[in-house]
Amino acid sequence: MTETRDYIRDGAAIYEQSFATIRAEAQLSGLSFWEERVAVRIIHACGMVDVTPHLAFSPGAADAGRAALVAGCPILCDSEMVAHGITRSRLPADNPVICTLNDSQVPSLARAQGNTRSAVALDLWGERLRGAVVAIGNAPTALFHLLELLDAGAPPPALIIGMAVGFVGAAESKQALADESALASIVVHGRLGGSAMAVAAINALACERE
Amino acid sequence: MTETRDYIRDGAAIYEQSFATIRAEAQLSGLSFWEERVAVRIIHACGMVDVTPHLAFSPGAADAGRAALVAGCPILCDSEMVAHGITRSRLPADNPVICTLNDSQVPSLARAQGNTRSAVALDLWGERLRGAVVAIGNAPTALFHLLELLDAGAPPPALIIGMAVGFVGAAESKQALADESALASIVVHGRLGGSAMAVAAINALACERE
Repeated sequence: MTETRDYIRDGAAIYEQSFATIRAEAQLSGLSFWEERVAVRIIHACGMVDVTPHLAFSPGAADAGRAALVAGCPILCDSEMVAHGITRSRLPADNPVICTLNDSQVPSLARAQGNTRSAVALDLWGERLRGAVVAIGNAPTALFHLLELLDAGAPPPALIIGMAVGFVGAAESKQALADESALASIVVHGRLGGSAMAVAAINALACERE
Repeated sequence: MTETRDYIRDGAAIYEQSFATIRAEAQLSGLSFWEERVAVRIIHACGMVDVTPHLAFSPGAADAGRAALVAGCPILCDSEMVAHGITRSRLPADNPVICTLNDSQVPSLARAQGNTRSAVALDLWGERLRGAVVAIGNAPTALFHLLELLDAGAPPPALIIGMAVGFVGAAESKQALADESALASIVVHGRLGGSAMAVAAINALACERE
């Protein structure tokens, strides 16, 4: 193959230069070690150094998520995009990555409950919620329904990454999560969010090596 | 399940209200039917109504992509996140969705060529490129390498969706694509981009129904 275009082809060099640019441009002061790692990787995923004012960590949430991953917790995802974005080789304990959205029970559950498939898919998580890292990268209804499950006594996860995106319920669902002071959460407030940001938070917490 | 939170649970109503908000707030004038559909869905995916000035369509590109999908073309993706975000039930001709990133040949190809896995994975697309819709939602190196393959005589796709994201090569690779006037392209210029935007463009072009 003739190299007809001029660009950097070395993946490690690309990461290094990307993270250096982010650290030169973004406002990251006051963040703990793991909070900074999460913020840098979220910026890397969305291309916006000005996302940091929208980012909120509950006290100790990033450390709690890191510890849970090291201890081998499952990672529960609301969407297949999130599940497929997580870099398996970065996971510290071969952690199971679980998405129940395409389970065959989901369509009938959604009809029965009058809720979205994304929301009712969480009913299938069951006991796996206890101590898990949860990544909501798509549906506000999933995040609202997770809070309903926890209201009703579902086992608490170690960390909830709330990055639902969009124009109906996204800002409200993430604010509702952040308002729950008993829950460890990492949130991008407002309309911004998405699976790439949720994946970035997981991939950051998964591995000491950037 | 007790409904303890107040939110809209009807997926169709959520979509409808989301798209109405986007059309009320975003600058969409001057776009053709399919260009507008793509723009609306990209905004929906990223939560930013102000992304439109960064969006560029080569003349006829959206229509060309739509026609190719209807004719049953394959959809070639640079990442698993893109491949898993495409809503199969929206595809007009059960179009094959192909991502070669995890092919077993890719690591050795990457070492041999001194390029990223994301880039060399495209060498495995071969004849499937002809008339395809290509979605690059992650790696600038993949987009640059696609242009190299086309420089070297690879069969031309019907449409290239260039939404590489980030800080090293993203803006440059998308500008290089847009500069190729013989190629049909849809691009988000600058650092912005990502798999969710690339997926949104495909999902928009796939189906008349929003």
